[in-house]
Amino acid sequence: MSGFTSLDHQFMGRAIVLARRGLFTTDPNPRVGCVLVRDGEIVGEGYHVRAGEGHAEVNALREAGDNARGATAYVTLEPCSHFGRTPPCADTLVSAGVARMVCAMVDPNPSVAGRGIERLRQAGVQVASGLMEREARGLNPGFIKRMEQGLPFVRVKLAMSVDGRTAMASGESQWITGPEARSDVQRLRARSSAILTGVDSVLIDDSSLTVRSQELALDWPEDSVVRQPLRVVLDSDLRLPVGAKILHQPGRTLIVTRSADADKADALRHAGAEVVCQSGTGRVDLRAVLEHLAVSEQCNELLVECGATLAGAFVETGLVDELNLYMAPKLLGSQARPLLELPLQRMAQQIPLELTDIRHLGADLRLDWRVLESAGEVQG
Amino acid sequence: MSGFTSLDHQFMGRAIVLARRGLFTTDPNPRVGCVLVRDGEIVGEGYHVRAGEGHAEVNALREAGDNARGATAYVTLEPCSHFGRTPPCADTLVSAGVARMVCAMVDPNPSVAGRGIERLRQAGVQVASGLMEREARGLNPGFIKRMEQGLPFVRVKLAMSVDGRTAMASGESQWITGPEARSDVQRLRARSSAILTGVDSVLIDDSSLTVRSQELALDWPEDSVVRQPLRVVLDSDLRLPVGAKILHQPGRTLIVTRSADADKADALRHAGAEVVCQSGTGRVDLRAVLEHLAVSEQCNELLVECGATLAGAFVETGLVDELNLYMAPKLLGSQARPLLELPLQRMAQQIPLELTDIRHLGADLRLDWRVLESAGEVQG
Repeated sequence: MSGFTSLDHQFMGRAIVLARRGLFTTDPNPRVGCVLVRDGEIVGEGYHVRAGEGHAEVNALREAGDNARGATAYVTLEPCSHFGRTPPCADTLVSAGVARMVCAMVDPNPSVAGRGIERLRQAGVQVASGLMEREARGLNPGFIKRMEQGLPFVRVKLAMSVDGRTAMASGESQWITGPEARSDVQRLRARSSAILTGVDSVLIDDSSLTVRSQELALDWPEDSVVRQPLRVVLDSDLRLPVGAKILHQPGRTLIVTRSADADKADALRHAGAEVVCQSGTGRVDLRAVLEHLAVSEQCNELLVECGATLAGAFVETGLVDELNLYMAPKLLGSQARPLLELPLQRMAQQIPLELTDIRHLGADLRLDWRVLESAGEVQG
Repeated sequence: MSGFTSLDHQFMGRAIVLARRGLFTTDPNPRVGCVLVRDGEIVGEGYHVRAGEGHAEVNALREAGDNARGATAYVTLEPCSHFGRTPPCADTLVSAGVARMVCAMVDPNPSVAGRGIERLRQAGVQVASGLMEREARGLNPGFIKRMEQGLPFVRVKLAMSVDGRTAMASGESQWITGPEARSDVQRLRARSSAILTGVDSVLIDDSSLTVRSQELALDWPEDSVVRQPLRVVLDSDLRLPVGAKILHQPGRTLIVTRSADADKADALRHAGAEVVCQSGTGRVDLRAVLEHLAVSEQCNELLVECGATLAGAFVETGLVDELNLYMAPKLLGSQARPLLELPLQRMAQQIPLELTDIRHLGADLRLDWRVLESAGEVQG
């Protein structure tokens, strides 16, 4: 898109910064920011905080008051055109007398994309879109993927040594990475709609998979209530014991199984879990789980925290968007456990990645890789 | 060290930049740079280019001429005090009338350390040392280690996938990394005194282990003669065929063996190799090889380019200073070959590393790790 000034970039940049404040709270809604500018001055700012509360545009208009008249609205996402829990933002902007609207991207939902823009244009508002679109898309990889493909954005998080190992052969693995990396994992969890694991990991670690707010390094009050992502346990044979810690945490736990054992399912439900039974036999169908999470749970971003077998299966079936690898500065040797159980035979089957981010976390590194394409089902 | 001004730092910084120009040529001498400053202006610059040619101080003095009188000399290494192929630089600085000498570090040779400084001081020159010592030491890790410990600085270079694999189980491995990474390996080779490999690698790849000057991305003429590092092949049973490419390249090839087979050794010598026989049986003693290279070959920096078994043995015996890992953006899976054959059993045996550098090379990453301590001999 051409025709944008450097001031346009500056104000949209500010809107993106505002949107990011909703990183941990807007779920299942997208993170959206809005800046209102009149005569080169910001007269109102807003961002979406929480589903059911005001959209970014409404919050910015409230701050601007009468100064919105004749202003330019910079919004990171096309204003909505439909009546949801709040009236359409496109109409609200028109009513407030906004003269120009610049959005970073159109609505990713194909069935409504462009309608908000059209509504504004018909009301005589000058409209442009596509400014800093890449940055704006980066705010909502999960919301966008769910709208476009009916699947969540899937991250697989793993802690590894420099030689690509996650634990000793014996299973010994605690504290591979340092406290900064573990805090960072909390932030990955907190931005996710759901956290998925396999029953074997739960049986071994008895992990809670919750967000501990005090580890998020936020300037929120320490006792503020954090949204707990949905916890998803793949448990084809319903081996999860009712006493597992994960069932006794704030928030919901969903067990996906193939087992028809109604007594076991009832016991787990009684312990607080929700149980979903997939038809068929063998291991749980991963794609079906993702479709269920997108459709029934409005799951935008899914964080997979599990062992090498399940993580390998996710990668192998081409369902992973991003690998988040926490690399600890050590060698664990060639008998230690592999990063992923992934039985590739020929170089042509290699799975290509693209580095998207790299950062220091104490003595550890975090390397983020986009998975470019899957080798498909390698095993028979 | 205190008492240095920001101008002192600026001029020593310049001397370090100059020293680095000798990165590929000074071997076995250290890389040294010198800047002469009078009244806040640089009046002469120099660096050591090649053994047998002028030292950095001499080259800078030549440029400065009479302006050296009353000047300050910034030198990255304590000026020498002994007669070698050239007169002692300490004396030359005194004769030129230099009023002050600042060096970044004293001579790493314990038997002469401080003598150059003392000589200048006795001649009435104002002397200070320790300015930007860390950066200056970084110029000559190998020369310093050889002087201090009688061993070369050992780098192990490996190309790996993100999941820490070097080749498929079948051995298929060509072109894991891209052209930028392969060019960078040429630069690693070019700065090394010697390149070491195992006979198995040579038998598999028939590699030349030479420096190809056109890949160094230097502003030297394309046809300029490059110093070829000594090639060292560990070949306990003298399995290297006389037709191996490595024997028919510019520069020397040294074979270290346990074999007493004089005919084979003679055939290899006839093919151009030098053969050194270690007493004892079994695999070649790695520490003895390094001692030999330091003492008999004045080897400063040794680059190890070999397979997982020999690389693992080097790491296991605590002889590696730095791992240079070229990480290609791909997954090769859990059946692929490990980075290092390194049989560690318990987490307590882990080998701790420290990240010293990270850089992008095309789509690949280069991660440099200092090996902090060895787990010692793990196997019986």
